[in-house]
Formats: sequence, C-alpha cells, structure tokens
Amino acid sequence: MVYASGFSEEHTEQGRRLEEELKEIALKYDMQVLGPNCMGIINNIDKINTLGLETAKDAFVRKPYVGVVAQSGALANIFMKRAGYPVGYQITVGNSTVTAVEDYVEYMVDDGRVRAIAMYLEGIKKPGVFFRALKKAAEKRIPIVALKVGKSAMGAAAASSHTGNLAGSHSSFAAVFRKYGVMEVDNMEELLSLSQALAAIHGNLPEVPGLASYNLSGGANILSADCAEQFGLTLPQLKPETCAEIRKYIPSYATVSNPLDATTDLFGQTDKIVGVLSALDRDPGIGAITITQDIAAQATEIVRGMVEAVVEGRRRGVRKPVFFNCITEMDRNLEIRNLLEENGVGLLPSMPVAYKCLKLLMEFACYDPSEHELTIPEETKANLKAGKALSEADSKAELRRCGIPVPREVLAVSQGDLARCESIPFPWVMKIQSPDILHKTDLGCVRLGVQNLEQAARAFDEIMANARKGMPQAHIDGVVVQETAKPGKEFIVGVTNDPQLGPQVLVGMGGIFTELFRDVVVWPAPIKNNEAIAMLKELKCARILTGYRGSQELDVQALADLIVRISSYAYDHKKALKELDLNPVLVYPKGDGVCVVDALLVHYQ
Amino acid sequence: MVYASGFSEEHTEQGRRLEEELKEIALKYDMQVLGPNCMGIINNIDKINTLGLETAKDAFVRKPYVGVVAQSGALANIFMKRAGYPVGYQITVGNSTVTAVEDYVEYMVDDGRVRAIAMYLEGIKKPGVFFRALKKAAEKRIPIVALKVGKSAMGAAAASSHTGNLAGSHSSFAAVFRKYGVMEVDNMEELLSLSQALAAIHGNLPEVPGLASYNLSGGANILSADCAEQFGLTLPQLKPETCAEIRKYIPSYATVSNPLDATTDLFGQTDKIVGVLSALDRDPGIGAITITQDIAAQATEIVRGMVEAVVEGRRRGVRKPVFFNCITEMDRNLEIRNLLEENGVGLLPSMPVAYKCLKLLMEFACYDPSEHELTIPEETKANLKAGKALSEADSKAELRRCGIPVPREVLAVSQGDLARCESIPFPWVMKIQSPDILHKTDLGCVRLGVQNLEQAARAFDEIMANARKGMPQAHIDGVVVQETAKPGKEFIVGVTNDPQLGPQVLVGMGGIFTELFRDVVVWPAPIKNNEAIAMLKELKCARILTGYRGSQELDVQALADLIVRISSYAYDHKKALKELDLNPVLVYPKGDGVCVVDALLVHYQ
Repeated sequence: MVYASGFSEEHTEQGRRLEEELKEIALKYDMQVLGPNCMGIINNIDKINTLGLETAKDAFVRKPYVGVVAQSGALANIFMKRAGYPVGYQITVGNSTVTAVEDYVEYMVDDGRVRAIAMYLEGIKKPGVFFRALKKAAEKRIPIVALKVGKSAMGAAAASSHTGNLAGSHSSFAAVFRKYGVMEVDNMEELLSLSQALAAIHGNLPEVPGLASYNLSGGANILSADCAEQFGLTLPQLKPETCAEIRKYIPSYATVSNPLDATTDLFGQTDKIVGVLSALDRDPGIGAITITQDIAAQATEIVRGMVEAVVEGRRRGVRKPVFFNCITEMDRNLEIRNLLEENGVGLLPSMPVAYKCLKLLMEFACYDPSEHELTIPEETKANLKAGKALSEADSKAELRRCGIPVPREVLAVSQGDLARCESIPFPWVMKIQSPDILHKTDLGCVRLGVQNLEQAARAFDEIMANARKGMPQAHIDGVVVQETAKPGKEFIVGVTNDPQLGPQVLVGMGGIFTELFRDVVVWPAPIKNNEAIAMLKELKCARILTGYRGSQELDVQALADLIVRISSYAYDHKKALKELDLNPVLVYPKGDGVCVVDALLVHYQ
Repeated sequence: MVYASGFSEEHTEQGRRLEEELKEIALKYDMQVLGPNCMGIINNIDKINTLGLETAKDAFVRKPYVGVVAQSGALANIFMKRAGYPVGYQITVGNSTVTAVEDYVEYMVDDGRVRAIAMYLEGIKKPGVFFRALKKAAEKRIPIVALKVGKSAMGAAAASSHTGNLAGSHSSFAAVFRKYGVMEVDNMEELLSLSQALAAIHGNLPEVPGLASYNLSGGANILSADCAEQFGLTLPQLKPETCAEIRKYIPSYATVSNPLDATTDLFGQTDKIVGVLSALDRDPGIGAITITQDIAAQATEIVRGMVEAVVEGRRRGVRKPVFFNCITEMDRNLEIRNLLEENGVGLLPSMPVAYKCLKLLMEFACYDPSEHELTIPEETKANLKAGKALSEADSKAELRRCGIPVPREVLAVSQGDLARCESIPFPWVMKIQSPDILHKTDLGCVRLGVQNLEQAARAFDEIMANARKGMPQAHIDGVVVQETAKPGKEFIVGVTNDPQLGPQVLVGMGGIFTELFRDVVVWPAPIKNNEAIAMLKELKCARILTGYRGSQELDVQALADLIVRISSYAYDHKKALKELDLNPVLVYPKGDGVCVVDALLVHYQ
C-alpha cells in the first residue's frame, strides 16, 4: 500500500515519471500495489484496518456486510461517518496504478463474504476484469450498487456518425450496468442507503415487483402515492382476501387501499400492526412492504412501538422484505437501526431517495442473468484512433455477408450492361460507384425512380458525366443499379465501439424522433433475441411497432433479428469497427421484414 | 379553532351533516373558523401558540421567518421536528370548512412579515383567493414554495378531447405555479430545505443564474458537476481575472475551474478561503456560490474552520448568496446552522435535494412578474357538467369571429349553388353539413381534392345520398365547399377548462409527437405574446419551428398569435367553454402564417 501522494495526480512531469517507475517495479517483481495516493483499506471480516481516517476507529464494531470500493479517503470518509454503516471492506484505490476498482470488486465477488458491494467509479482500467467481475456477480446474484461519476465532464466522444453523437461514454456504462444487473445510482446518499438496505435484507429479494406502502397518516399516504409514481414503482391493488383481513385491524373510517393509511389508531397496538403486515405478506401481488416513519436519533415511544411491532411481525413469520422509509433527512437512532437490520428490515432515508432505492431493488429482484448474453469481451486495446468510412458498396457487402437484407443491386460498368440489370424490377435507383465520391447527391450522381431501360441509359450517361465533371480525379467503377425499397417506417440501428466497454448497439426511430426526443436505447453487444425485443419495448415510440392508431403491426421480430446480427457482427469485428450507422432501416408490416436502405461503416485507420 | 374531529373526514352521513352545520353557523354569524379536525396554529411573530403538538414547545425560540400552511398535525409535526426550522406561522387547516390554505397564504402575503411561505397543498377551495394571493406574492416578490400532493391519485380528468386527456389537473397547478413564480417541489425534504434557505438569504437573490460550486476534494467536485447537470444548473466558466485571483490562494497542483476543487490545503486558512470566495463574488457570471461540506451534529474542527471562514467572508463583504450543500443526510449542527443563517448563508441538505433547491431558486431569481399576464380569473363555479360538441361549422365560425385563420368555405344547399363557390380555388374539400352527423368520413360524406365543377357536381350528389342513406333522420343543411389548405407542419393547440384554475392552453406538435412523447406545454389563460413565444421555445421539438436540418424557419409569430387569441377566447368564454381542440393547426414558413384545418369546441351542456 502506497499512501504517499506526489505522483500523477500532481499533473507534473516528475509525478508521472515516479508513477511509471512504481508500476515498472511492481511488474518486475510481480507485486500487487494499492495506491499510490490512497488511504489504505479496512478488511472488517478478517479484522485488518489500515485506513488512515479518524472515522475508521469504530470499524470493527460494525457488521461486515458491504464491500465498499471508492477512489479516495474523502469518499471513504463518507461511508465511515455514517454510524452503523456495515463496512465489510473499505478499499481506497487512489491512482489505481497497479490494482484498480475492478480488481477489488472481482476479489469480493469471488470471496463471497459480503452481502452487497458499493462501487464508486470514476473509470476503469481493465475492461476484461471489469466484465468478468460483473458477470460472476450477476450469476452469483451478488448485488452491486454503482455510482459512476464524471457523466457531465466526459460528455459524448467526438464521433463522425449519428450513433456516435447520440451514445456518449456514460450511456455505455449505463447499458453495461443494466445488462449485468448492476444497480446504478445517482449520488452518494443513494449509494449508501441502497447498499445498506441490501445488506439488511440479505438476499431476501422481492419475488414480484409490487410494493405495499403502509402509512400512519393521510399525509404520508398521499406523499407515498406521488413518490411511487415519480419513481415508477407499482403499488398494486390488494386482493379481496387481503382487504378483508386488513379491515379487521384498522378503524372503520379508514379505507383499505394501497398505499394504506392504517391511521394513528394502530399506535402501540402490536397485534393489529402485525395483523396488517401479515395480510400484506400473504398477498401474492406484493413483493415488498415499506412503512413511512421518520426515525430520529431521539426516537419517541410511538416510533419505538412501531419498530417493535414490525420486529414482532418478523418473529411471527412475516417473510417478505420490509423497509422503513423516512420523510425527511436526519440522523437515525442507531439502536433502532441495528434492531431493524438484525431482523432483516432495511431502514431507508428520506422519501425520494427511499423510493428510488426501492425501484432499483425491484429491478434487481426481477433481473435474471440467463436472459442476457453475458459474454466477456476479449480485451481490445483502447482504440481512439481516427476512422475511415467504407464506400456504400463495401458497407453493404459487409452487411449482406452477415445476412442482413439490403436492396438488390448490380454494377453497370457501361451503358450496355444495363440490359443485364433487368433482373432488378423497375423503378430503379441509380448511383455512381466510386471510392472517392462520398456525397453523391451533391454532385448529381444519384437518380431515383428510373422507370425503364431508355430512361436508365440517359441516367447512366448523366451520372457518369456529372461525376467526371464534379470530381475529375475520382476513380469511377461504374453505376450501381439498385432495387427501390418499398416505403416503410424508418428506424436507425447503429453501433459505437467504446474503447473500454466494447461495441454498443443503438436503436431508435429514424429522423427527428431520434434527434429531438433522444428516443434511443443502447445495449452492449452481443445481444440475444429477447434482449433485442426488450430494447424495442423500451422505446417511447414502441407503440408504433405494435400497431398504433389503426396502423399495422410492424415486423418487430425482423428488426430484433437485425439488431442481433448487427450486434454479433460488431462484436466479432470490434478490433476493426469504429462506428456503424444503418439509417434508415425500413421496417415493414409483420411478416414483411426490414430493409437497410443506407449504411455507413467506419473502420479504424 | 375547532380541533375536534368527527366531521366529513369520517366519511359518514352524520359527519358530513355536522360539518355543514358548522359552516352554516359560521356564515350566519360571519365567523372565521379554522378546522375542524385541525391542530391549531403557531403565530411566532406575535407569540401565540395553540398548536397541540409536543414538538411545538420550542416554537418561540425559533426565528419567525417562514409562514407554513399544511393540512394536518402530522405534517406540521415534520416542520416542528426539524431543530432550528424558522417557523413564523404554522397553520394546520384541517378540513378547511370555512377558511382554507389560500386564505392563510393571502393573509401572510398581505401581512408581509415572513421571509418565505411553505405551502403543502392537497387542493384549493377558493380559486379567486388563491390567484389573488399568488399575484400579490409575485408582485411583492415574496417567495412561495409549494408541495402539491395527490398528483397520482387525481390523474387526468375524464375528458372527451385530446387536449383534455393530455393535460391532467396536476399540469394545471404546475402551470399556474410557474406563471406566478411559485417554486414547486416534489417532497417534504425539498419543501423544508428550500423555504429555510430562502429565509436565510432573505431576499438576497442571485442576479444571474450562474452557480459557482466550491469543493474541498476531487470527489465532491465531480459529484457537483454531475449533480448540476442532472438538475439543469449552469456552472459558468470563470472570468480570467477570477481565475488569476483564485490561483493566488490554491496550491499549484490544483486546477482553477467551476466546479472548483480548492483542495484540503485550504483547511483552516481563513484568508485563502475568503480570498477564493471574494474572487467568485466579484465574477459577473456568478449569481450564487455553494460549498460542498457535510455538517454533522458533531462537527469537526475542520468543518468549524470552514464555516467560520465563510462567515468571515461575509463580514469582509462577500455579497452574493452563499450556501453550504451536504453530501449525505444527517442531523445538522444547530449552532453552526444558526451562525450561518444569521450571516445570510443557507444550509442545504444532501446533494440531490440541495441542487434541486438551487435550481428552483435560480428560476425564482430570474422570474419577472411583469413578463406575465397575471389577471385574476373571476370565479366561475366549479363546473364538472358534461359537454356537448359544436358542429364543425359552428366551431369554425367561433374561431373566425376571433380572427383565427381557417380555410375559406361556402355552403351549397343545392347542386346549382356550386357555381357560386368558384371564388374558392380548386381543389376543393367537400363535406356534409349537418348538426347530427359527427363522423362524416365514416358515412362517406367527405370528398378531398375535387378538381373542377363537373367532379364537384358528382361529389355533391354522392355526399347527399350517403348522408341520407347513412343517417336517414339527420337534418341536412347542405354541402360545405372548402378551400384545400396547403401542406404545413402539423401542430395541436387546445384548451381544457380546469374547474378551479380556469382555462389552460396546450400546444404541441401534432400526431404521435404529442401522444407518444408528451411533448406539450400547458399555460394558464390569458397568455401574453412573450409567454406564448416562451411556451413554444420550451417544446422539445422547438428546433422544428426555428428551421431544422435545412428545413425552413416556420411562422412562430403567427402560431404565438394564435395561442394568444385562443387564450383570450377561452378566458372570455370560460363559463361556457369546456374544451377546445385545434388539430391540426398547419404552420407555414415564416411570413406565411398558420391555418386551422380542424376544430372541435365543446360547451358545457
């Protein structure tokens, strides 16, 4: 462990040289190094504490449940300052010169001794290790909560394709997290709260995503309903048997519903509180129960009564995960927190954070690794080289080779060749074929709607003349005669190749839908058929695919198949392919397939 | 004040009767009544405390800065439980039988003795009082923070028009809040935090919306950048003079930027901290400064040093509003909170809430009541009666009367009348005119693209025959001959008439843009021209109006003018008009105006 600073973080030549030297020594002697510029570690399972922080003095008193990896001491301090936060490991990676966040995550996943992992991530150094760690965690169902920072600073990488501009670096991380079932949060409060709640429930995950919201006042009830809607949580209607059972315990003026205002009438009445909890626990539509109750450092008797009733409920067999969510921020009573957590009850903070955490938890609970293609991409060296666009013909030839439908075409080298093209039905599209002419339309080198051989002969001559006039030095192969695609709904399918995370496939509706509304979904390659279907369902314009306002249902399966093929192609060619745009992809009514009208492939130079 | 419960909240006949009786007595003797089913009030300015809550015992010790109105004791308790929350008034309105939230808000606005108003709102009872209170607050620049609950439960009111389904009751409240410069929050934590911060800065509002984020670690710095982006806050680049000045105080390895990582090097160095603050204070692009620093109940020497340096900065003339924002939730040190607030420094909670509050504050600071049409709607009785659609001809006649461009049309009663219609250029649209036939197309009673008199004569006969066959009992006026509108971009302009908040005007792009992407803006009528322009700028598809990807700039002014006219019409006819849909409104290139092709007006029956 190298605590010392004075390395690359100083942004000086000397600092960078020193860090290089450290790395060389480590490699030479096959040493693992933590840091430099780090604050050490806590391993609270084997009781080792090298963390240079005052707040770490009570580390061994804590429950060793969460594996925390964060860059710096300042961040580690945030975890340590929260009384009762169950630090199992606390790793501060510093400059990550030799070992990086992903190494420690993989270690903790293999180790299998923590209940959850909290990962603060500025970036990764070893994509292969990163993917391997996530894959193992997904398969072992070890919950990982991730806060990826630097979203704003990184922005979208400069890119020549449409897809490249739409899918920034952060969307690649977000897509990888979702594919591997990692719960991505937006801030430190969510990172701490969700990881701690996961430790409390220890694998007792909701079996269905329905939430029951249990409240003690009308105000809390209405706030819960709004908050659930804000974060997309489902509060399902309770079954008639559940309602009948709850009716027994709550006063006559109260209404049985979800969210449930059980009223202050139940304060101190353990049997009634347990009765309601047990009824909710037996309802098949409910996956988890959350109770709105602020729990302050100075807890009142009412709060203690409520907490003890819930604990009693657990003793009497309430089996589903239960949480307390608070209304406002404050310090929480540590004794109560411990009591709840020991009984598998999570204590969540103020409502917006609490409900956001519950939403992520529900998604994790519903995640199934077998539904996803979790191939670990073989590492390609980070490749930020410039790209070179392939000609349209070469781009389409690549697509044809992997079974992607493109319009039929024949190259006519001379006017005389045109007769040979009659296997292609009129009307034709005719375009110059030249590796040097990229902007064909601008030079007058494209003709649409050519109806017969006579028109074709004239078009051939004009196209050739325009090409020679517009770009005299261009190498010209001839004129391509192309089938006119029948009209369909326009979509875009694209690929960007993230230098660390590999190819990411994007899909969206074409034109302004994609650009103005950012209605796109990004998913890491390779992609399975059911993943492609799920991508399409997630589009805001998904209803267009399934038949909207009397329009026909489109060929969703053919579009999904295209996504799968493109994802395999991109994955197999990830060392060569920088970007790919299929725009537009015409999607036809169900059974009639798709057609890629225009394609742009960009290879690394 | 009637504390007793047992009234309408019991949902019993007896309860409702008792409440009616209470109301009658109050009216008869001209008494103002608070409650029933309330918990009393605190007036901490004149030192009156009738609040039946244990937590209210320290009320008079608090600073009397915020006027709080909330439904119930349970909610009031949340304000009182926060140590140091500066309760000026705490009103619990209970069932609002005689006096409602809006009465107390108006009182506090007139009174002018609070620095901010925190309003928890389930609904209103007296729209006139509500609007009057908001208008006076807007003009006096008294900040109101509002939490409107019941968003999910209320949903969109059942409505027969497209606009009615898109604009629910909550969007009317949200639009009214924005028009009157009310800061709308989503949860209790934001309600408490923002109102308290506003009390601390006491009218010292940012003059420009740029925020300076001052941090003491790289981690906090990167979190700040992400959070600012998440909530739409601008962290402007610092001016060269500012950078040069800051350079003097921070270590050489640190980078001068916004967000600024001033590093831990400045801990305890008051002069340097004040130097940086003063430099930010002088930067003309900066409107407010926020410092990331968790302030726990047990504050460390480092935290105290930072706080004291900021207070010293205020003494030495730092003029712009300064805030501390925390990273995670916890109890805050009350002594430090008081010290900061006495020096005009706001203490905000954990980052997502803090940055959300700062965003709302910036919007409030930029709000100018003179830019808005703040006419107080004369009260119309809450009107939820069923509606009746006007015929297309009557709808269009109404529009024509208020100067809204619709296609020219002439009624032909007989085939012989057609020659008279030749003032309308071909091609014609021909439609049956009958108050009884609403679905003209379904009955074959519409012809498009009629090219000449001969075709017109045939069309006339067919339309009349189809009408007589399809609906033999219908009263038929004849066939309308209409000008064919030239193609343009399709928009929708609509009105819903909220029974309490009056007519709300909606605008969006037509078709699936509106339905799938909910790309609409709602604004209360009447609307000024600059408000209409602002509505259009707010659409996600705004770039389509200003000329997108080589397409022509559209006639934004003509569309804004249409919105203004429709808003006046809706406002003037608010007792009769239930809903209005102009769909599509064709918008032409700049200078060529707009055309309302189809219109549906629904009147109350």
